Amino acid sequence: MTTTEYTVTGMTCGHCEMSVREEVSEVDGVTEVAVSHETGRLTVTSEGPLDDAAVLAAVDEAGYTASRA
Amino acid sequence: MTTTEYTVTGMTCGHCEMSVREEVSEVDGVTEVAVSHETGRLTVTSEGPLDDAAVLAAVDEAGYTASRA
Repeated sequence: MTTTEYTVTGMTCGHCEMSVREEVSEVDGVTEVAVSHETGRLTVTSEGPLDDAAVLAAVDEAGYTASRA
Repeated sequence: MTTTEYTVTGMTCGHCEMSVREEVSEVDGVTEVAVSHETGRLTVTSEGPLDDAAVLAAVDEAGYTASRA
């Protein structure tokens, strides 16, 4: 199991968190997503090594910008 | 046709606007809903006189608080 941390900018509310959670949950191997608009912290748990580019693309798809924390 | 203005507090983004729009659109007689999280202004167009309590309840259902502007 791998846990990877990201910082997401632009989220303002719980709806924003939900958008990010939905997109990131679809990335291959992801088993759990924790995200907070208050801290901007996104924690992704995966079965194996996580495809960073896929996570960043998923957050972008949700309408926000992420970087590795 | 009647246009009624409300002030909504608590909306922070486009997702919030969408939540308000969805709930208020379901109120009887409503034909158009315009809402902005930037100004907090909610403008409801209806076929006849609008049921204020129903609009306030719809906004509450979306998770925000409205009052007549």
